[in-house]
Amino acid sequence: MLWQLDSFPGTMDTMSELISVSQAEALIAEHMPSFGSGQVSLDDAVGRVLRQSVHAEHDHPPFDRVMMDGIAVRWSEAMPRRLRVAGSQMAGMRRQSLADADACLEVTTGAMLPDGCDCVIPVEQLRRDGDVYLLRDDCRPMAGQFIHRRGSDCTQGTLLLSSGMRLGPAEMALLAANGVAKVEVANTPSMAIVSTGDELVEVDAPLGEGQIRRSNDTAVRAALRLHGFDRVVMEHIADDEAETRVRIAELLERHDVLVLSGGVSMGQRDYVPEALAAQGVRKVLHRIAQKPGKPMWFGLGPRGQVVFALPGNPVSALVCATRYALPALRAAQGESAISPETVCLDGEVDLNPMLVSFVPAHVKTDDQGRLMATPVPSKTSGDFSSLPRTQGFVQLPPGTGKAPSGTVATFWRW
Amino acid sequence: MLWQLDSFPGTMDTMSELISVSQAEALIAEHMPSFGSGQVSLDDAVGRVLRQSVHAEHDHPPFDRVMMDGIAVRWSEAMPRRLRVAGSQMAGMRRQSLADADACLEVTTGAMLPDGCDCVIPVEQLRRDGDVYLLRDDCRPMAGQFIHRRGSDCTQGTLLLSSGMRLGPAEMALLAANGVAKVEVANTPSMAIVSTGDELVEVDAPLGEGQIRRSNDTAVRAALRLHGFDRVVMEHIADDEAETRVRIAELLERHDVLVLSGGVSMGQRDYVPEALAAQGVRKVLHRIAQKPGKPMWFGLGPRGQVVFALPGNPVSALVCATRYALPALRAAQGESAISPETVCLDGEVDLNPMLVSFVPAHVKTDDQGRLMATPVPSKTSGDFSSLPRTQGFVQLPPGTGKAPSGTVATFWRW
Repeated sequence: MLWQLDSFPGTMDTMSELISVSQAEALIAEHMPSFGSGQVSLDDAVGRVLRQSVHAEHDHPPFDRVMMDGIAVRWSEAMPRRLRVAGSQMAGMRRQSLADADACLEVTTGAMLPDGCDCVIPVEQLRRDGDVYLLRDDCRPMAGQFIHRRGSDCTQGTLLLSSGMRLGPAEMALLAANGVAKVEVANTPSMAIVSTGDELVEVDAPLGEGQIRRSNDTAVRAALRLHGFDRVVMEHIADDEAETRVRIAELLERHDVLVLSGGVSMGQRDYVPEALAAQGVRKVLHRIAQKPGKPMWFGLGPRGQVVFALPGNPVSALVCATRYALPALRAAQGESAISPETVCLDGEVDLNPMLVSFVPAHVKTDDQGRLMATPVPSKTSGDFSSLPRTQGFVQLPPGTGKAPSGTVATFWRW
Repeated sequence: MLWQLDSFPGTMDTMSELISVSQAEALIAEHMPSFGSGQVSLDDAVGRVLRQSVHAEHDHPPFDRVMMDGIAVRWSEAMPRRLRVAGSQMAGMRRQSLADADACLEVTTGAMLPDGCDCVIPVEQLRRDGDVYLLRDDCRPMAGQFIHRRGSDCTQGTLLLSSGMRLGPAEMALLAANGVAKVEVANTPSMAIVSTGDELVEVDAPLGEGQIRRSNDTAVRAALRLHGFDRVVMEHIADDEAETRVRIAELLERHDVLVLSGGVSMGQRDYVPEALAAQGVRKVLHRIAQKPGKPMWFGLGPRGQVVFALPGNPVSALVCATRYALPALRAAQGESAISPETVCLDGEVDLNPMLVSFVPAHVKTDDQGRLMATPVPSKTSGDFSSLPRTQGFVQLPPGTGKAPSGTVATFWRW
């Protein structure tokens, strides 16, 4: 039988020592600093969080715009079906003018509608004969056709983008179309992911007896980078009291955010808690009523640096990074839409009577449009070999017995 | 009344000229080249498509692993409750040995279980008295407790990751934990997004009469970059026959993929089709029975370069990039999971009797776990001011009247 920390009664904390998931969320949110904002070039803005409003630079379209290649004419019930070419109005040209009702101007898609015209006839409905266009027999032009009217999409000054939006393709198109070459976006904080422990070996080093490779830092860094946090270094500190003090002091000096990927334990050789305390980092919370990830710790440094100490087990570390660190960091950037999804369980899940359960799951919409979550429970919180089959985890409240298939739950994506 | 190309009967193509959405998909898939794969460092692999299998380098855990700080002992029914400290086994140390059943070794989380031990007692259940540990009164140790057994997560050689997975946090953790410092990933093709037209002005240039700013290229580049396609340049070609020939030839020489953001029209001053033909690019498809995006064109160059010519209207361009170019490029990289989601319409949508409709929509899961799509129709295919409120578009088959609220449809995310 395999024993686990979280299920062993002898070490079950009294519930009064644990804070709830929502209390933890609120405490973290309350202590997050702002990382400010700055201007970047449009090219560098992709995927960043917008921190300004964007209004329409001009009417869209900015002029009555020709929608087809063909001719522009002055429409009337009695308009002639034979029209002399009086000139042309190509896309990009200043506005031309049509003087006569029996003449036309050649036009291309995207051109300004020439002065004196109110109808565009596409080339497919025309036959050219020298300097004259003849309307084909089936051509029945109507006033206003193939004209994309000035301001019909939106008028100058319309609010198009608001602070807090993440800049995807559509937002980028609107920035470009409205002349926003320099964009105010949220700064990304400078972050260090810190691992400790002499048993941890680099990914490319020989693995000795009693050793394993560092991997939590790589996972957490990937999660951060895929959410646009690109200023993230990984630092490893050996189990040495003096070195730990010096390095922690340096890291707190240089970075806005520390993420301890190995957690804060009470181990004899864990010098991190003392080193943090020596630098004036104070605990905001420790131990949350959840499984996995109970040992989660969060603290605040003297100049507002935040310290997330993730539990050391791989599943716990990634769950806590996803559930607490990422949403808090995104909210601190001013991002507006970071709520979790709601899913429907496709399979039952064991509940814990005292703790919120976070259960990795594979999600997929079914043929009714429901987002179905198939639990992929790991054998222990150390077992991450099954996580690649999942897209995140469901959050289930404490309870007795099992949450049956069909239960609705919130879902957090990796 | 505002006329639109796609709805004007006079220019309605006979349906036989149009190919279906699924035919277009199949034709594109059939002609996509492979872009090969190559090794990158683990750091550079985040978000890329894996092109190798990864098996467990060793058992996980690689040894019987201590799960708590405390002591390791030899368990028996009659084990003493007073245990002499015979030494210590810290994380990262080679395996120690416990000789006597009345002694113990101090252990830390992550350490090897010492030889001769089969039980770990956490420090919280102990009291130290000189060189002796006393079990607290409520301590009831059991054989095997707090030991994470060698190979219990997975055994050496277990398949952990397969070719075609996109490398997120969990996959990155497994690469690191299994010593994969160099990772075989799909190459990203070299791409150029090409815009043409003298009416198009740079984002930071003064806007003259009859001009608009380039924005389709920015949108498509953002879509590509957010899917990991990072080798994408933007090129603008003026409306000049000689220049168009030279530049198109150069671009086909230098890149694997061209995306024409302004489409291939029959306009008098569109020199692109001729320039492509002159370089041996042959048409694979042109005109798809869909709205927006009917003028979509796809072709193939003499050394396998692919050319996507997106329609010129902003909504059409982004829809076609999302519906055709991105899935095809991702599949060409060997990515395995790129199917669309299924959603439930929250609002009715006008259907087109002949054409597949792509309708931008805002999606959100409801309190039953259903992914609900609220249509956000644009006024014209040129109107992209409402797109920031959407996450993608629903695809609806041709039909008469309206698709009612509640209709199930596929959904493509930007």
